[in-house]
Amino acid sequence: MPSTDEFTGWLGLDAKSVEGNLVKATFNPKVFTDDDIDIKISHCGMCASDLHTLRSGWGASLYPVVVGHEIIGTITRKGKNVTQFEIGDRVGVGAQCASCLKDDCYECTHDNEPYCTERVFTYNDKFTGTDDVAYGGYALQGRYPASFAFKIPDGLPSEVAAPMMCGGITVYSPLKRNGAGPGKTVGIVGIGGLGHFGLLFAKALGSDKVYAISRSKAKEADVLAMGAEGIIATKEPGWAKDWTRKFDLIVSTANNADMPLHEYLSILKPGGRFVQVGLPEEPIPQLQFGPLVTMNVHLLGSLLGSRSEITEMLEISAAKGIKSWVQSYPMEEVNEVLKLMEAGEAKYRFVLCN
Amino acid sequence: MPSTDEFTGWLGLDAKSVEGNLVKATFNPKVFTDDDIDIKISHCGMCASDLHTLRSGWGASLYPVVVGHEIIGTITRKGKNVTQFEIGDRVGVGAQCASCLKDDCYECTHDNEPYCTERVFTYNDKFTGTDDVAYGGYALQGRYPASFAFKIPDGLPSEVAAPMMCGGITVYSPLKRNGAGPGKTVGIVGIGGLGHFGLLFAKALGSDKVYAISRSKAKEADVLAMGAEGIIATKEPGWAKDWTRKFDLIVSTANNADMPLHEYLSILKPGGRFVQVGLPEEPIPQLQFGPLVTMNVHLLGSLLGSRSEITEMLEISAAKGIKSWVQSYPMEEVNEVLKLMEAGEAKYRFVLCN
Repeated sequence: MPSTDEFTGWLGLDAKSVEGNLVKATFNPKVFTDDDIDIKISHCGMCASDLHTLRSGWGASLYPVVVGHEIIGTITRKGKNVTQFEIGDRVGVGAQCASCLKDDCYECTHDNEPYCTERVFTYNDKFTGTDDVAYGGYALQGRYPASFAFKIPDGLPSEVAAPMMCGGITVYSPLKRNGAGPGKTVGIVGIGGLGHFGLLFAKALGSDKVYAISRSKAKEADVLAMGAEGIIATKEPGWAKDWTRKFDLIVSTANNADMPLHEYLSILKPGGRFVQVGLPEEPIPQLQFGPLVTMNVHLLGSLLGSRSEITEMLEISAAKGIKSWVQSYPMEEVNEVLKLMEAGEAKYRFVLCN
Repeated sequence: MPSTDEFTGWLGLDAKSVEGNLVKATFNPKVFTDDDIDIKISHCGMCASDLHTLRSGWGASLYPVVVGHEIIGTITRKGKNVTQFEIGDRVGVGAQCASCLKDDCYECTHDNEPYCTERVFTYNDKFTGTDDVAYGGYALQGRYPASFAFKIPDGLPSEVAAPMMCGGITVYSPLKRNGAGPGKTVGIVGIGGLGHFGLLFAKALGSDKVYAISRSKAKEADVLAMGAEGIIATKEPGWAKDWTRKFDLIVSTANNADMPLHEYLSILKPGGRFVQVGLPEEPIPQLQFGPLVTMNVHLLGSLLGSRSEITEMLEISAAKGIKSWVQSYPMEEVNEVLKLMEAGEAKYRFVLCN
């Protein structure tokens, strides 16, 4: 049973909601526990996952749904077990809002909460062992377990921090875990919300060379401004030949499966890794065993990042003055902004503000 | 131009040769250089690659071909640059007989010779920059660069060492590189020549639990005798459910692509690795991005192993008394043995002896 408390948000009622048909209405958040916080939401970034979910692209969604998992707000209420925060603290909540956190969970005790079997997503999910639905950040208020909220460093503006909570950490984690850093050449496939963070963080981690990999060179000026060495256009015939065995790591943020995956693998060094973080609705392009075996390349995926990685990412971003490239809109205009987003107009992340 | 020297071997003249139609005849080995050795071949293991190559299964082979790359013999001649061996030394040669070994080759200077762009396979290949064809070990004599020959430790019988030169190292390397050892649970898919080495070496490296993964339990007694904890039969409906998230590492020696790959990935722990070492002639089964992303599993391939890993494998095998399970036949009977091998009769490796 959810609580009888009423929060206000922008609800998606069916798959058509993605076309700009969210409805401003009240919803009942989870039951408040001693481990929870309520926050007054000031900002919420808009992630491709929001669209996939609104249109039931990854399977039937749990309507009514409140999407949004790049949430910044201030704490207005806290449970008695919440000692790490004070009322008024500015915190962020990302795409995961709970895991078991038990002492006998290998993932939770090894900084690997995204892979806990009791992971709860911030929306379109239910809290483990309850019927309480998780609601996201296209709203005025939110209620979440404090253990998955993160203090935002003072130096980091809210509109900069918001899209890091999902878009940022989703690329930061695989970059960090797969060796981005000094001596390495890193490619980022897809220069959208996630991809622009890929370039910023790959540079921030000290990678020698960072390249954007995109269909065309239309975003060349932008990616150079983000610190990339250059942009590789995959619509140019034979593009991969010049890059054979040049990359230690490629992080792919592509959101559709129509990708030249064999060419991507061919530009990895032996032992190199291709990490998919975008989650296309279609299957992986047909692969041959030959290139995997004869080049020792790794194909893997990565989901979000651990709590310690989120904290680290926020600290590095504040310390290095990393700036998300965002366009902010009033949350009241969310239905118009949804249409802009579907049209690919984000440069590179839309942030909704209350 | 090859040399005018004449060696004697069993030649495959066309794709039908795989059916037991090898022809005993002479061939001209590579030109002898100061870096080469000649060996009198005493043993040669029979590898699935031999069959793939004889029937042009991986593409048109370079007929006439002499297959066999699990070679043991004694040195009968050595070039003046060869200081590490003496005439009469017992050495092994595996599936790779050359790489550039240049100071500016990243792979050759980082114990990663199988991935050198100038890698030469021991048969069905040509020596870089020459027309000299590489001929394998179904022969009385062989000529190879000494840099890819390995002294066989005294404690290791030749028929035990022979199949390690390809079958052994092909699983030893990925087990070692991907963390097989204390605390780890390892699965080996396919219990044939490579697979039986997978069980033996995973145990020898100290893995906590090692399981054979096979279609049926027909080989249960054998795999227990090899040290495995048990055997998992994939023809049993729903077999994967009991093993969800149990494996740190799976090495797949399967030689055909008709495999339940999604189930294999599902039994890996988050961050776990599935390493394909068999090289099916067909493409990889269609994959979804979902399991890769949400479980952070790695799909990769591995080819042979480095020179340092071959030396290490031979030393460990001698020290721990590891015994390959072999059936030996006179090399003169190779055509009959080829038929037994195609029929899947090897338990678990055939070795030809002169």
